[in-house]
Amino acid sequence: MDTEKFRHTIELRVRNFEVDWQNIVHNAIYLQYFEIGRIEYLKHIGIDVTAEQINSASKVVIVRNEINYFLSARFDELLRVYTRIKYIKNSSFAFEGYIEETSSKRKIADNISVHVWLDQSTRKSKRVNDEFRDKVSSFERNSVEFLT
Amino acid sequence: MDTEKFRHTIELRVRNFEVDWQNIVHNAIYLQYFEIGRIEYLKHIGIDVTAEQINSASKVVIVRNEINYFLSARFDELLRVYTRIKYIKNSSFAFEGYIEETSSKRKIADNISVHVWLDQSTRKSKRVNDEFRDKVSSFERNSVEFLT
Amino acid sequence: MDTEKFRHTIELRVRNFEVDWQNIVHNAIYLQYFEIGRIEYLKHIGIDVTAEQINSASKVVIVRNEINYFLSARFDELLRVYTRIKYIKNSSFAFEGYIEETSSKRKIADNISVHVWLDQSTRKSKRVNDEFRDKVSSFERNSVEFLT
Amino acid sequence: MDTEKFRHTIELRVRNFEVDWQNIVHNAIYLQYFEIGRIEYLKHIGIDVTAEQINSASKVVIVRNEINYFLSARFDELLRVYTRIKYIKNSSFAFEGYIEETSSKRKIADNISVHVWLDQSTRKSKRVNDEFRDKVSSFERNSVEFLT
Repeated sequence: MDTEKFRHTIELRVRNFEVDWQNIVHNAIYLQYFEIGRIEYLKHIGIDVTAEQINSASKVVIVRNEINYFLSARFDELLRVYTRIKYIKNSSFAFEGYIEETSSKRKIADNISVHVWLDQSTRKSKRVNDEFRDKVSSFERNSVEFLT
Repeated sequence: MDTEKFRHTIELRVRNFEVDWQNIVHNAIYLQYFEIGRIEYLKHIGIDVTAEQINSASKVVIVRNEINYFLSARFDELLRVYTRIKYIKNSSFAFEGYIEETSSKRKIADNISVHVWLDQSTRKSKRVNDEFRDKVSSFERNSVEFLT
Repeated sequence: MDTEKFRHTIELRVRNFEVDWQNIVHNAIYLQYFEIGRIEYLKHIGIDVTAEQINSASKVVIVRNEINYFLSARFDELLRVYTRIKYIKNSSFAFEGYIEETSSKRKIADNISVHVWLDQSTRKSKRVNDEFRDKVSSFERNSVEFLT
Repeated sequence: MDTEKFRHTIELRVRNFEVDWQNIVHNAIYLQYFEIGRIEYLKHIGIDVTAEQINSASKVVIVRNEINYFLSARFDELLRVYTRIKYIKNSSFAFEGYIEETSSKRKIADNISVHVWLDQSTRKSKRVNDEFRDKVSSFERNSVEFLT
């Protein structure tokens, strides 16, 4: 993975109850890790991610997740979660995530998640708003694709 | 979704702690639902899914998950989880899953998960064993593809 | 445990991701099981437990949990969760729960949880309402204590 | 809470999926927080808490948990988890935990958990070993009670 394209990372430590009977992190837990990355990313670029915002007039919903699992993470390992916005289309955008074990740089998992901007009253998709576009654009500089 | 191709379904009820602050089932929880479906499927066709088996000489690992989210599931709804094996290749196979709300048949989510057969000592992939092929084949009849 | 005093039970099956690296159900998961029991109990006696109700004028909050762990539950075991209301005081009440493995009646865990009735605007405790008292009383008959 | 008696603390941030439909941390999640505190405590004083150790000749099992819930924690709050060993008896010991919100010092929850030392072959309780007693004693100094 070319990690140079990512301008945001966090670290987290694998907790004992995230590990399953095979002694490795359970496959659904990685979705939590990628989501922690996305939320920290949004906070970092100045987007409000409180529950109040999320229940306001427009709402962002997740419509797709793709995860590839490489090598398993284990209890007490420190993981680095890389997060970026890969593209913004008219009414949707995609996050890309990547997880490696911090010290060995062992490749753990990657993720694409697709999110749609919804109008709360009509339940129809609407244009990703300009504040969001601007904040992503000024953080990511040239690396995010605007596809429309 | 053409649910006729599925010969295995289970029902489960959404639990209150599976619902997030948006009052809908959290996106990672659906991976748990699909996995419950897969485990019940394997038990149903006579495959041993105990921890002992899982830690034996050959081990099946998940290498990819794809989930599409349609309409959200909510607290206390009864969901129907459809599960089938879509294909078996030389050393891998894929499950397909589909979730609908039972009474309204509202489309909730679908899933493809890809699994690889590993040799525990060499950590290399190995041929999906014949017992597994036979059990899947006799349960699914003609609907599973053998791609090798 | 004298299970005769319980007039409500449900059954649930241990899911693979509820089991930890010791191959037994993780200690925090039992709190989920007891809560599933309480919610089904409330639904059964006719109490509305939707999110809307929960965010209405009065709100019930949990203030204490006590769990004793006896023998561990394991993957795929079927558990029976017994639930009753043990007492109702002026502004609080307690649930009692008990879990056994269904076929062997192996003793798994027990629980007392204490809940307080709050006024949403003042955030002060208020009297447990009469509808709740009546429904519990007519379901439990003489076995619940009214301590006021 | 007199936090002066605690010589070990960690900080953790509330994750979005730990928050329930009431917009507050779900009651079972606090058990995870206290456990994270205990594991970091054990690592800090030099006790091996890997899965391998845990499945070795003697095993420590949890037999009781008591949690009092004070004020709710919310999404994105930073929490401080205090952990200490309160007493060591012949074959059991107890952890005490306390959680406060870091900036306001708002009181969130406290916990007592009781653990028993087991012989893996006989399944009977055995004396808490001397290495454990010594490490706890030298870390806690006079504040831990040895009750036997």
